[in-house]
Amino acid sequence: MEKDQNRQEICLRDLQLPQDLKKLDLYQCRRLTKEIRGILVRTISHNGGHLASNLGTVELTLALHRVFESPQDKFIWDVGHQCYTHKLLTGRLHEFSHIRKEGGISGFPKPMESPHDAVISGHSSTSISSACGIAEAMRLKGDTQHRVIAIIGDGAFTGGLAFEGLNNGGKKKLQNLIVILNDNDMSISGNVGAVSGYLRSIRESEGYVRRKQELEGNLRNTPVVGIPTIKVLKKTKDSFKRIVIKQATMFEQMGFVYLGPVDGHDQQELEDVLNTAKRYDAPVFIHVKTIKGKGYLPAEKDPTQFHGVSRFDIMTGNPEVSGDDCYSAAFGKELTRLAAEDKRICAITAAMEFGTGLQYFEAEFPERFYDVGIAEQHAVTFAAGLAASGAIPVFAVYSTFLQRSFDQLIHDVAIGGLHVVLGIDRAGFVGEDGETHQGTFDVSMLTAVPGSVIYSPVGYEELRQCLRRAVFAETGLAAVRYPRGSEKGLTFPGRPETNYSFIDGESDVLLISYGRAFESLWQAHCTCEKIGYRTSLLRLTRIFPVEEDLVEQALSYRTVIFFEEGRGYGGISTIFGSLLAQYGFTGRFVRVSADGFQKQASMPVQLDKAELSAPAVCRYIYAYGTKS
Amino acid sequence: MEKDQNRQEICLRDLQLPQDLKKLDLYQCRRLTKEIRGILVRTISHNGGHLASNLGTVELTLALHRVFESPQDKFIWDVGHQCYTHKLLTGRLHEFSHIRKEGGISGFPKPMESPHDAVISGHSSTSISSACGIAEAMRLKGDTQHRVIAIIGDGAFTGGLAFEGLNNGGKKKLQNLIVILNDNDMSISGNVGAVSGYLRSIRESEGYVRRKQELEGNLRNTPVVGIPTIKVLKKTKDSFKRIVIKQATMFEQMGFVYLGPVDGHDQQELEDVLNTAKRYDAPVFIHVKTIKGKGYLPAEKDPTQFHGVSRFDIMTGNPEVSGDDCYSAAFGKELTRLAAEDKRICAITAAMEFGTGLQYFEAEFPERFYDVGIAEQHAVTFAAGLAASGAIPVFAVYSTFLQRSFDQLIHDVAIGGLHVVLGIDRAGFVGEDGETHQGTFDVSMLTAVPGSVIYSPVGYEELRQCLRRAVFAETGLAAVRYPRGSEKGLTFPGRPETNYSFIDGESDVLLISYGRAFESLWQAHCTCEKIGYRTSLLRLTRIFPVEEDLVEQALSYRTVIFFEEGRGYGGISTIFGSLLAQYGFTGRFVRVSADGFQKQASMPVQLDKAELSAPAVCRYIYAYGTKS
Repeated sequence: MEKDQNRQEICLRDLQLPQDLKKLDLYQCRRLTKEIRGILVRTISHNGGHLASNLGTVELTLALHRVFESPQDKFIWDVGHQCYTHKLLTGRLHEFSHIRKEGGISGFPKPMESPHDAVISGHSSTSISSACGIAEAMRLKGDTQHRVIAIIGDGAFTGGLAFEGLNNGGKKKLQNLIVILNDNDMSISGNVGAVSGYLRSIRESEGYVRRKQELEGNLRNTPVVGIPTIKVLKKTKDSFKRIVIKQATMFEQMGFVYLGPVDGHDQQELEDVLNTAKRYDAPVFIHVKTIKGKGYLPAEKDPTQFHGVSRFDIMTGNPEVSGDDCYSAAFGKELTRLAAEDKRICAITAAMEFGTGLQYFEAEFPERFYDVGIAEQHAVTFAAGLAASGAIPVFAVYSTFLQRSFDQLIHDVAIGGLHVVLGIDRAGFVGEDGETHQGTFDVSMLTAVPGSVIYSPVGYEELRQCLRRAVFAETGLAAVRYPRGSEKGLTFPGRPETNYSFIDGESDVLLISYGRAFESLWQAHCTCEKIGYRTSLLRLTRIFPVEEDLVEQALSYRTVIFFEEGRGYGGISTIFGSLLAQYGFTGRFVRVSADGFQKQASMPVQLDKAELSAPAVCRYIYAYGTKS
Repeated sequence: MEKDQNRQEICLRDLQLPQDLKKLDLYQCRRLTKEIRGILVRTISHNGGHLASNLGTVELTLALHRVFESPQDKFIWDVGHQCYTHKLLTGRLHEFSHIRKEGGISGFPKPMESPHDAVISGHSSTSISSACGIAEAMRLKGDTQHRVIAIIGDGAFTGGLAFEGLNNGGKKKLQNLIVILNDNDMSISGNVGAVSGYLRSIRESEGYVRRKQELEGNLRNTPVVGIPTIKVLKKTKDSFKRIVIKQATMFEQMGFVYLGPVDGHDQQELEDVLNTAKRYDAPVFIHVKTIKGKGYLPAEKDPTQFHGVSRFDIMTGNPEVSGDDCYSAAFGKELTRLAAEDKRICAITAAMEFGTGLQYFEAEFPERFYDVGIAEQHAVTFAAGLAASGAIPVFAVYSTFLQRSFDQLIHDVAIGGLHVVLGIDRAGFVGEDGETHQGTFDVSMLTAVPGSVIYSPVGYEELRQCLRRAVFAETGLAAVRYPRGSEKGLTFPGRPETNYSFIDGESDVLLISYGRAFESLWQAHCTCEKIGYRTSLLRLTRIFPVEEDLVEQALSYRTVIFFEEGRGYGGISTIFGSLLAQYGFTGRFVRVSADGFQKQASMPVQLDKAELSAPAVCRYIYAYGTKS
């Protein structure tokens, strides 16, 4: 049947999308999924991005668009990094080569980009709660026709927010709500948590629903003293019924109709189950089994490496840049060294072992290494428990994801004055991932926490020094934050073991910064010096609390300009400015900070747009500097 | 047996605690629990506090201390408000009359108060994660003898963090970990969520474990063609075994041994189950059924009202102050009025319907009212979903609990520019609940969120005006924050519909504040004026973003003093100070803010200690003011 020679060959660019998808037969669907996989691999090998998760959801996305009516029916992509096929199927083929590039389409769903993208996503475990809100709004409007479908991976499922959403969606019996568990047996760095084990047990049962039905049928036909077994059992033991029939899966226990597991690469099976789901007037939970990296062998073999990738060689799958020359690796290796010195040191990650460089630690000290899954709240409270018992926990986490732990930092760590160390990776701009992933809020978040201490090193050597100090010299909540990517290898005056370094440029203009942004100051300082514009520099290393004698030293300058690669409110620049006012500064104070959401672009472009690149700093020097 | 006349009568004050508890017989235990309940009701009727939850856990706490060895075995009280009996049983009887008072013992567990208090608690759903950390630290030290016991209510169980903890504790198979579900069928304002329904179904099965065992025995004895049924079923249908035996409860699915449910007021049954739990070398989950308010009729009849109480009449249970004269009620009533005008308005609470005054809303508009349980993350993302679909969601939440939603405010609300309104109750000092509940971080948290707007009214009328503006005039994330308690009824110049009001005192000293702290400024201003000290005042109403023309107006003053009832870093005082420096202010700037953790005391005392009371403000006026 599938080899029918008269069948019209189809091609993505010839289709009216998404409406034409419904007209395709299964053979054409297969052709289309093949074409889509080719586009995904080619594009991501150039642009970088999330590969494995997108390859795993091609058939599922096609099935959704064939069974439902987007945008009236709403698809909510949890985390959002698996939305590439959805973008291709909703008319964004021509923009696709510019995905994740400045001015191009986003690597995540964006309502401003297309009506088919219902909500913004980027962080994990939000989809069910978002979908509950939309489903409830539909109900209030009397819309019983349409559905909101949350598509969530088994990794994202470990986040407490997903559980809160499920708990509420099930309780409210939201009949417009469908939750699809995209179960690829793989959170970002491997399976974590008891629920994963549970999901695996269902997954391995190969057709739970059907099996259960068979079972019931079987029991009915098994005579016990002439009465069908199931009837006897129901009569004699009411609890039995509950156990066998009602306590089937935890999803049913939570009020959902459970369908699955189905093969996520079998187009027909997928569409059958989605059509079945549409017929219920109750929330439905569909369990879909997919294979991460499906269809591209290097990604199938190593889906973790191909989760989020930089440019790679399409034939071998090898990345173009080494993963060893980066702040994450420097952090991970140094922490491993420290852990060899001190047995109390433990390392924690929330499903980002490789992203945060903790693979080195795990290899050496597996018994002190904890991957808690996507559960940043737990990570911090768990760390607090360890610290309360005399361990020295170090939680390595991306700046943007640490936002999930704000309350735990205050309540579980800071009130008790516990010694918990944070390794804050991807602090500052992150480039192509855009608004949802930027690491520009951690400083504001941490300055709000009483007793916190923040280090912001430049370069690997200073990172190592700061980590050592945070672990051994501090006694409370101590954070070390460092940017995405690799050091520039610049050298400048100042000793890494001090909290700050002045570079006296014989000028009454003082430029202040910390972390990566300081590299721009140094470059600008050197450039401008050559043409006679002199500036003095202040580099902060232990950036918070701000040392007041430092403020006193700054008072003697005519102009102080503070450059901050992060939100200024609650940031160090605002605190410094306020201290200047409190100390009676009479000169001019200028603040340059990255207050808003940074659109996707390369990191150098983002720095430039925020006036934090070397050329931008030069412009400030020309405007305020002293020419000798 | 229990009426044995020779039995020695015991009394709490005569016991060496906790060690003597193990020597008591059941009759003496019963006497003791009666004595404890008397102390609880008497003390709380005077001091206020959490009554119903403490009355419900008297036998459980006694059983824990009789079976385990505190402090080597660790008890982790989730939320912590049920720890009063634990305090009485660990030698704090004499301090108990000063519970929640300045200088007295805390109403929550505090390690600095006693080695029997393992960790700080106050917020919900942290206990399992804390216990995981402590259990893991025990394992690293090679301690297999002792146990960490998390005691968590069914309300706290709806928080995603509890799920994250359970997921990790089960996966790690922490053999030192015991989780006790204190199931009183009642989160703070009634049962919420699918899990509650599920718990009820187990609870109603009256002895699930025993029933399951009976069932297995029964099946074994039911012949089907001569073979015991269970054997046939195991052979022919492997999935059946999983369903009947392994998928018993979601807790077993998550890797715990499940024991229960047991009667939480039957001392013998409780101690039996705890002794059983000690014998497992796997994480154990014990389901205990308790009655909130047990033993005090008014509390048993209305446990919601007796959850957290102010002073009350011991005979009738009637509170001494009316619950209607407070900011919460003013908020709830006004929101109900607005909802009558506009059908798009929805109200959301996270298990604090009565605390936030939303009972008025629910009574009028039940179909637009959502109690999502203790799930602040979900509340915000759910609100974002509603807003994305054209509704106007208003989330009423205590300031301290909003800390749980920081990431959701940024990721789900602010990036998309969605219009979500926050009613932030208990903003600022909260009095006797102390450090864990203070509402002094919400401003710092919200100024970190791009595009946020914050109102901080004084008095009910201004609260009403601000709420109306936040709902109808704002378009993004808009917060209205107001203090615990009631308005003072002061009147001062200025119109509530403006963003700020200057009160020109013909002075070159400008005092600035917002919210409740402004009342102190006004009182101090009036007091000092009478003795010739003149000050000008600036009251901020829409406090963020800070309007820059306001800063320009402040430039003309010789001295500017900003008083802030909250953390200054990230607070408005620091932002204002930095703006002064940026605008070239040459006078003196003084900041007074509540940066640290506020110890328990009455709110007036807390204000005074933080230099935010009227007398404290007077001292600043004497120091900096101009005497005419």
